[in-house]
Amino acid sequence: MTDLDRLFSPKSIALVGASPDPDKLGGIALRNLLGLKGAVYPVNPRYGEIMGLRAYPSASELPEKVDLSVIMRPAAEVPDILAAHRGRARFALIVSAGFAEIGEAGLQQQIVCIAGEAGMRLVGPNCIGIFTPRHRLDTMFVPHARLRRPRRGNLAIVSQSGAVLMSLLDAARIANIGVSKAVNYGNAADLDAPDFFDYLAEDEDTSVVVSYLESVGDGRRFLDAARRLSGRKPLLILKAGKGAGGGAAAFSHTGRLAGNYRVFRSLMDHCGLREVEGFDELLDAAKALSYQRPAPGKRVCIITNGGGAGVLASDECGRQGLDLPGLPDNVRDELRREFPSFYTVANPMDLTGQVMIDDYGVALSAVGDHYDGFLVIALTGVPGVTPGLAGHLVRFHGTVNKPITAYIAQGWVAPRLTRPLEKAGVPVYHSPERAVRGLAALLWKMA
Amino acid sequence: MTDLDRLFSPKSIALVGASPDPDKLGGIALRNLLGLKGAVYPVNPRYGEIMGLRAYPSASELPEKVDLSVIMRPAAEVPDILAAHRGRARFALIVSAGFAEIGEAGLQQQIVCIAGEAGMRLVGPNCIGIFTPRHRLDTMFVPHARLRRPRRGNLAIVSQSGAVLMSLLDAARIANIGVSKAVNYGNAADLDAPDFFDYLAEDEDTSVVVSYLESVGDGRRFLDAARRLSGRKPLLILKAGKGAGGGAAAFSHTGRLAGNYRVFRSLMDHCGLREVEGFDELLDAAKALSYQRPAPGKRVCIITNGGGAGVLASDECGRQGLDLPGLPDNVRDELRREFPSFYTVANPMDLTGQVMIDDYGVALSAVGDHYDGFLVIALTGVPGVTPGLAGHLVRFHGTVNKPITAYIAQGWVAPRLTRPLEKAGVPVYHSPERAVRGLAALLWKMA
Repeated sequence: MTDLDRLFSPKSIALVGASPDPDKLGGIALRNLLGLKGAVYPVNPRYGEIMGLRAYPSASELPEKVDLSVIMRPAAEVPDILAAHRGRARFALIVSAGFAEIGEAGLQQQIVCIAGEAGMRLVGPNCIGIFTPRHRLDTMFVPHARLRRPRRGNLAIVSQSGAVLMSLLDAARIANIGVSKAVNYGNAADLDAPDFFDYLAEDEDTSVVVSYLESVGDGRRFLDAARRLSGRKPLLILKAGKGAGGGAAAFSHTGRLAGNYRVFRSLMDHCGLREVEGFDELLDAAKALSYQRPAPGKRVCIITNGGGAGVLASDECGRQGLDLPGLPDNVRDELRREFPSFYTVANPMDLTGQVMIDDYGVALSAVGDHYDGFLVIALTGVPGVTPGLAGHLVRFHGTVNKPITAYIAQGWVAPRLTRPLEKAGVPVYHSPERAVRGLAALLWKMA
Repeated sequence: MTDLDRLFSPKSIALVGASPDPDKLGGIALRNLLGLKGAVYPVNPRYGEIMGLRAYPSASELPEKVDLSVIMRPAAEVPDILAAHRGRARFALIVSAGFAEIGEAGLQQQIVCIAGEAGMRLVGPNCIGIFTPRHRLDTMFVPHARLRRPRRGNLAIVSQSGAVLMSLLDAARIANIGVSKAVNYGNAADLDAPDFFDYLAEDEDTSVVVSYLESVGDGRRFLDAARRLSGRKPLLILKAGKGAGGGAAAFSHTGRLAGNYRVFRSLMDHCGLREVEGFDELLDAAKALSYQRPAPGKRVCIITNGGGAGVLASDECGRQGLDLPGLPDNVRDELRREFPSFYTVANPMDLTGQVMIDDYGVALSAVGDHYDGFLVIALTGVPGVTPGLAGHLVRFHGTVNKPITAYIAQGWVAPRLTRPLEKAGVPVYHSPERAVRGLAALLWKMA
């Protein structure tokens, strides 16, 4: 197994194609690298200095062997550029497009050979590279104004597509999910998803991994690595190119056959791997798994202050294979004594629009021992739902230590409830079904 | 058929249980009614004046026969209150809970009889009532700070659940969907979904109707009215209480049996009615149908600047039963001459991260005659995507007049693209799959 620490947390980095123009890709990328916890060497024969850093005319002249060299020059130049790296870099990340994805398989094979001879491992070509917030590594040639980066956290993203990686990073930021590492490997001429899986399985900063892929190079190797990783921490796979249309699109995108999806799917099932259906499902599950540890069981209790939202959540539980057993008799009797007669003391438990926040605390305490997971719905249109509700949920979560997610309807109180809840590890969603999907991800096949 | 104009656009309204306390429900409701384009009469025996309006001790003393009386008093008082309305109101809307939903079916039957004798039609009980932005009618006892209202528009919402109505209104506002009329009918002791369907079929302000329901009173009547309505304009039905768990929850919520879902579903199919699976799907479809007219066909063309997003969209097209036929030969040849060699001239068409906005215009013009619907994906992380893209899409939409939706990834440029697009009638979504679902709603079974 290749140790990818120097790739994800390089102590030194070269940027071939660095530009002093902040609007050019080589300038944007350099600016984004300036925060690196390590040395940065711009490579460009036309300048002696770029953005305050000494520039080097060629990789061969770098003052040390760098951990990572990022190459942003036209495809035709890449073979010579790589050859100049002999003894000067451990990893090369080739941003440039124009290889197998447009039919130039020969050129792609050539750069693999040159890199091998020069003792380097490759990421790409045709990729946007790597993002390690902890190490302030950011090889993406996208200004922050165009793509605000998510905060540091425990979610790792392994994406064959650069555009999907960017969309996922953006969506992660909006959903308040922190990221440990992210990589887009493009054509995967050398390093491929299995290499990143093996590395992330050991990575202490990463608790959950999502993988977007269109094609798999060596299927056996992929499944073995995916199985090893998912034995250590949750792995969510989004496989695109499922239908005939999608498969054709995937081929022209990275130059690898998407394969027969049904075969892939049955192998995934056989190996106990977890697939999600689309972008939103991936995000919902990743959020829950980034906030909480999965736990065994599928017995869910729903506590709501709106009957309809509870019914919609019940339906989604049915679709997700979660059970909603009724309340134990003693719990039901206790709560009937405690609550007004018009509350529905059942599962879902409907505390109605008359709810006061303490009622949520009473209900959760009563059911805590009897279920595996909990969904709390708080519609903020009613006067009894105040920011203090967060405290009840957080205390409960701290006590029972079982999966719990929340659907908080948007509105005045919602942000003031959402912030403390998410700070304390309770993920909040914006529809009943999405909150159930988050909970289902935490309870998935752990029984 | 009852003419419900006086219900949705009353010239005069009474509020029984009006309060001068702006924090009490009767005070919140009165404040929200003050904007009504019509006369407002607070009814409360303890005050001579409330919020600057003359108050009346009883409905029997109202100075005119009002179009609508809203009743917010405890259930036990409602029979006497209704009796006092004889000759004084056309419609009564009973907000109060405490009827069939908690087993008090007798009390509910009693108020139906009293209303009938008094010549009134009832909405409710156990409901939050009616919202008609154009007429500034808003019977909801929820302050604007807790539930910001959506703008005026062409979407009507018919909801059995008050909480779901509030969640839908809030979600509609966030998704930039305007509302024509909204009603929550609760226990449906008298007026029921079919009555509202018949009215909305004729309503010129309404172009699309969504209906959330848990149970159906008279199934034949419901299906007939739903079929009549959907013959006039799109009707989207979200039926909750599908599984055993959901069904039990629905029963305790409004006191009506949810019925056998499979029977309901097969009748819906038989009648050509359109069901959506959950909250988010309802919203995605409603948004598209509120922005554009549905059209026949299922041949879709995807134009993207990110390969992966195009593949995900292709997969969702497959799930939604939409086709992605390849480009006609002459179109393909023309675009190959026009575009750089690394663009993928196919369907999906991948204009890559190097895209300039004019490329979208060229691509759309070339394919416009050959497909039934269009999905445009613009990932805003790349320099070539500027707010000017909106103009290309808007011009194209104005020319071809066929369904078109967009997935615009969030970020710096996204809001500046989204606003002009939605203003010109192109709905924007935040994931590739949701944008496809919007497009599918426009192309649904119109072939």
